[in-house]
Amino acid sequence: QEQTSFPPFILSIIVGEILRLNEDPTVHGVALHLSENAYSNKILNAVKPEKDVDGVSDVNLGRLVRGDTYNCSISPTASAVMELLEKLGKTILHGKKVLLVGTCGPLEASLQCLLQRKGAMTMSCQWKTQQLQSKVNIFLCQIIRSHSATLQITPTPLGEGKSTVTIGLVQALTAHLNVNSFACLRQPSQGPTFGVKGGAAGGGYAQVIPMEEFNLHLTGDIHAITAANNLLAAAVDARILHESTQSDKALYNRLVPVVNGVREFSSIQLARLKRLGINKTDPGTLTADEISKFVRLDIDPSTITWQRVLDTNDRFLRKITIGQANTEKGFFRQAQFDIAVASEIMAILALTTSLADMKERLGKMVVANDKNGQPVTAEDLGVTGALAVLMKDAIKPTLMQTLEGTPVFVHAGPFANIAHGNSSVLADKIALKLVGEGGFVVTEAGFGADIGMEKFFNIKCRTSGLVPSVVVLVATVRALKMHGGGPNVTAGAPLKKEYTEENLQLVADGCCNLQKQIQIAQLFGVPVVVALNVFKTDSHAEVDLVCEIAKQSGAFDAVPCNHWSAGGRGAVELAQAVRKAASQENSFKYLYNLELPIIEKIRIIAQKVYGAEDIELSPVAQSQISRYSKQGFGNLPICMAKTHLSLSHQPERKGVPTGFILPISDVRASIGAGFIYPLVGTMSTMPGLPTRPCFYDIDLDPDTEQVKGLF
Amino acid sequence: QEQTSFPPFILSIIVGEILRLNEDPTVHGVALHLSENAYSNKILNAVKPEKDVDGVSDVNLGRLVRGDTYNCSISPTASAVMELLEKLGKTILHGKKVLLVGTCGPLEASLQCLLQRKGAMTMSCQWKTQQLQSKVNIFLCQIIRSHSATLQITPTPLGEGKSTVTIGLVQALTAHLNVNSFACLRQPSQGPTFGVKGGAAGGGYAQVIPMEEFNLHLTGDIHAITAANNLLAAAVDARILHESTQSDKALYNRLVPVVNGVREFSSIQLARLKRLGINKTDPGTLTADEISKFVRLDIDPSTITWQRVLDTNDRFLRKITIGQANTEKGFFRQAQFDIAVASEIMAILALTTSLADMKERLGKMVVANDKNGQPVTAEDLGVTGALAVLMKDAIKPTLMQTLEGTPVFVHAGPFANIAHGNSSVLADKIALKLVGEGGFVVTEAGFGADIGMEKFFNIKCRTSGLVPSVVVLVATVRALKMHGGGPNVTAGAPLKKEYTEENLQLVADGCCNLQKQIQIAQLFGVPVVVALNVFKTDSHAEVDLVCEIAKQSGAFDAVPCNHWSAGGRGAVELAQAVRKAASQENSFKYLYNLELPIIEKIRIIAQKVYGAEDIELSPVAQSQISRYSKQGFGNLPICMAKTHLSLSHQPERKGVPTGFILPISDVRASIGAGFIYPLVGTMSTMPGLPTRPCFYDIDLDPDTEQVKGLF
Repeated sequence: QEQTSFPPFILSIIVGEILRLNEDPTVHGVALHLSENAYSNKILNAVKPEKDVDGVSDVNLGRLVRGDTYNCSISPTASAVMELLEKLGKTILHGKKVLLVGTCGPLEASLQCLLQRKGAMTMSCQWKTQQLQSKVNIFLCQIIRSHSATLQITPTPLGEGKSTVTIGLVQALTAHLNVNSFACLRQPSQGPTFGVKGGAAGGGYAQVIPMEEFNLHLTGDIHAITAANNLLAAAVDARILHESTQSDKALYNRLVPVVNGVREFSSIQLARLKRLGINKTDPGTLTADEISKFVRLDIDPSTITWQRVLDTNDRFLRKITIGQANTEKGFFRQAQFDIAVASEIMAILALTTSLADMKERLGKMVVANDKNGQPVTAEDLGVTGALAVLMKDAIKPTLMQTLEGTPVFVHAGPFANIAHGNSSVLADKIALKLVGEGGFVVTEAGFGADIGMEKFFNIKCRTSGLVPSVVVLVATVRALKMHGGGPNVTAGAPLKKEYTEENLQLVADGCCNLQKQIQIAQLFGVPVVVALNVFKTDSHAEVDLVCEIAKQSGAFDAVPCNHWSAGGRGAVELAQAVRKAASQENSFKYLYNLELPIIEKIRIIAQKVYGAEDIELSPVAQSQISRYSKQGFGNLPICMAKTHLSLSHQPERKGVPTGFILPISDVRASIGAGFIYPLVGTMSTMPGLPTRPCFYDIDLDPDTEQVKGLF
Repeated sequence: QEQTSFPPFILSIIVGEILRLNEDPTVHGVALHLSENAYSNKILNAVKPEKDVDGVSDVNLGRLVRGDTYNCSISPTASAVMELLEKLGKTILHGKKVLLVGTCGPLEASLQCLLQRKGAMTMSCQWKTQQLQSKVNIFLCQIIRSHSATLQITPTPLGEGKSTVTIGLVQALTAHLNVNSFACLRQPSQGPTFGVKGGAAGGGYAQVIPMEEFNLHLTGDIHAITAANNLLAAAVDARILHESTQSDKALYNRLVPVVNGVREFSSIQLARLKRLGINKTDPGTLTADEISKFVRLDIDPSTITWQRVLDTNDRFLRKITIGQANTEKGFFRQAQFDIAVASEIMAILALTTSLADMKERLGKMVVANDKNGQPVTAEDLGVTGALAVLMKDAIKPTLMQTLEGTPVFVHAGPFANIAHGNSSVLADKIALKLVGEGGFVVTEAGFGADIGMEKFFNIKCRTSGLVPSVVVLVATVRALKMHGGGPNVTAGAPLKKEYTEENLQLVADGCCNLQKQIQIAQLFGVPVVVALNVFKTDSHAEVDLVCEIAKQSGAFDAVPCNHWSAGGRGAVELAQAVRKAASQENSFKYLYNLELPIIEKIRIIAQKVYGAEDIELSPVAQSQISRYSKQGFGNLPICMAKTHLSLSHQPERKGVPTGFILPISDVRASIGAGFIYPLVGTMSTMPGLPTRPCFYDIDLDPDTEQVKGLF
């Protein structure tokens, strides 16, 4: 889809806003920042002379933006606004209202941000675009309000618009129906932005702004995860080295040194003594045996599961040998780097409910086994406090906004392949508190109902204690045609004509996937609203057919959405359906009981959700399951690591595959995050750079500071 | 040194401030946040009843902090202020002034920040603690104002107080002498904070606040460097792989794909064609030979000098083998990770003068040679724009403050071993603009005069065009005794009695090092003020002796400083001496002409600065020098990679070593940063974790969010 010219309804909104602002005594000036094709005499004549920026002596804008905007179609506004801000100095805008109409692109978004930084109140934005700066905990509450999860049918590799529907829906709720709402999105990984994927901030008129920040470092949460993850990794290897080259006594003297004549255990060491059953506090009284127990973690290097991470698509780090310098005395071993969002610390960030809870989870992370087969944790390494310190700001969700000025929390973004792929519990909880009685929180649940939703209910809802009132299931005609037997869809290649011309048979055949996804949602007892994300090539008959079949298949409602081309206005019908569905009685239930054996829980998911006949465990998987059960981790929920491109484990099997045996090649555990994750086939945890990465098109204009090519 | 109890002069300042605030109609309330030992009836009685926080209905503080502070000596204020802020809600403090006296520790600093985040104006702070948000370029100016560089004599491994003197000096200038001033500090690397070094924010009553942020992620500049550095590294290896496994035609089809029926070069590709002498813009018209030239960088893997980086002390990454996964098809090779601050991108950040300049430097970075021995750059890999985008916010200096509320820029922190180790040119330039006529900018120059100052003059001043008016040379009695023949000083071990008892002979003997450092500064024609950082164990006679010898040795002045125990008030005499010295005529000159051959430049530094008899080049160093000269890089300045613990290359040789031959083992180049760096011996570029890293003592209180053990 390409961006069309300004829709007429937006032009009429603009005129309406200008007329309203003309009469508002608290508005000091009206500055128009519109793309060229949006100007018309109707708009220009609407501005009252005394509010026109050319004549507003109060704000002293001087001759400003409009002329520039007219004359130049490439980034006039950014340079013009810089000039403006220079003229205005540092504080003159503070507290003044400045109208900013048509915030419809990254340029206007950055302009709005600049104005807000100067303290100006821009008209369309009711919420501040800045990181939430207060303590998180004070916002927490147990009240459950309307809470809807957005996910999609089994997608094509192009994605079907989960994020844009989420954003369009809140734009419709808040900006058009006047209902308080919040979108909770995941933070995208920066690595793929420069690789094959490019930026991710929704699309068209349903976007998060400022988009550059959303796709780049943002407030540094992923960098904090990288720092914490790698400090723990460095601590593991350094500890093995130090234990291997020192006597018990030397280790003890270094671990518990005499400082200013006094020898004391640190509090983290006292806790370790307690865990070892040594109830002493004076370092001088430990027996040789107790000293040995205390100083030696005795990590078995072959059992290390803790990997280093980077937020860079670096395929050469998928398998490496570390420790080859002379200073490491021959203790080299094979290891790997994962993409940062695959770190267990990211999964913890998404599931934690408070600082205290996060610290506890960080300490419980298992990094390896000792030579007796017992788990070694971050707490054993003495690094819990440091990890918590590194993560102390990351735990605060970042507040952003949609193009229509409605609030968005961006927080956490666990890898959906090996983790649960949902946005954070904390963001949902804070948002629920903020929207108040009758408000809505729309939270993104990664990938299809088989992957994102199942984990959303069985893992995230168990942790948060929250239950959604509605499931919004996103479908596209394109993806349904693919499930109906259409040709392959590949990123980068042009779409085949089956996808651009009407083909009711393919649509009807593909709706089996939609029907199955609806049935999966119904397993949990929550009403489903199907949001059909309409593309300009979809015919009326195709759209009607999908909605018809969806309703026959048990959806509470099914509605077409045009948020991409029309913003929130294009999702009003969806918003009304969601409100109606949310008022229904809700008979939520989990899919499985945590007390069941690990194998049983895996089988339930495979059969009930994926439609598998049975599961088949490799010998490695079997021995891992019995190890975890023995170590006391058998009661954790299951987080399946399976492709999202098919309901089965084979990406090429579209529609609703049946009769397959799901092979479990390995089983791993994220004890801090609190789940067991069986691997269905091999999951790549480090993407690579293609021959022509996205960065070829990414550039920065040094004069305007404008980022190009990120979208 | 240990923190003593509240000095009486601070108590009298507090009383004075309270009395003044009592009369100020714009101040709505006076809240006292003092450590327990600071309370006295004099202070309590000074507060006017209607301004007392217990009775100020306007701000509605309710019963507040004082009682808590009395009752509890561990972190009462943080929890109390959280409670306060909760009561106050989100906006009620906005624009109100709240007195915050005794900002003398991390706790009070964080409290001040919290209040400021709520929009309250805290009394002692004239400058906002937030990142500079406007465009950097608009602040640049060419006016040179008083500008003094702080560095130290050859230090002990404990450091002699370069940062604390810098901070004490600006506190004295601005808070006590009412002269506008700015300190420009380097951002500390987060890795060593959790390793052996611990936090770095000055000390005692001369500190940067908030200290936690200073020692942690801060505004993410180092993380941005890590991301940019590693994207380039990933691009190098991925490119070698793709070139090795594809034909010219396949590469060309991927690098210049048909998109929506159109085939076009990107602008970065058009620039590459131009460099190759191919003046064509239509992808269809290139000959087979031109296509081959265009698509193949032909990188020689054995010449790759670009390494990956992490801001973690991870010794196991000092030497690694990468590319061992099957997907990399056998293209494994040996590589290494450096600490992030050793990245050339950090050196560029410290030396750049604008966004456009930074982008150009990033593009010029040489990552390897091709198989014909020609340099391959970041620009050849098409990644310049992406690197600039990743660094777009890092180029903005971070504004912080001292304990006495005077402004500090924190920006860049290049590794002083292999780079130039100075704070950023941009921060200095912006600060010079901001202090105005008659103001002072004090900028930190890493390590001793042989390392930090020589590079400051010959590299940084050449880039910036700025010349300092004064050199502040920091000395301690402890370090001079070491140079006079005192026993070894080791971090962690208690100091020998020679250092804690008066010993005039050791001091007198050690002053040879001070004298030599003064002489080095005089080579550049700038007046030197010696700042003797006084410890409580130093005797009056020792202090007098050092100042006497310093003045005899050619220092403009030499004064004792007590900023550690007394804040800016303890550095007033130093500030006065610096002002006086700055008013002197200044006959600045560089040490060498850039046009000289590389070997000649190295020899001049070795002989004139270090006191070497001559230099000796290894065969590798010789061939590197001739390669760089041939490649056109012979006219760059020299950045010596030498230990800072001796004027010679042997750390154990104290005092003023003579008669040695300086061995140059290798010569490398940072073409983007713009210097050649000869290696004198081996320089570790990745620190490790000791048996008991600092993180054992670092913790986060989940209730108060207070960080413990970082200082």
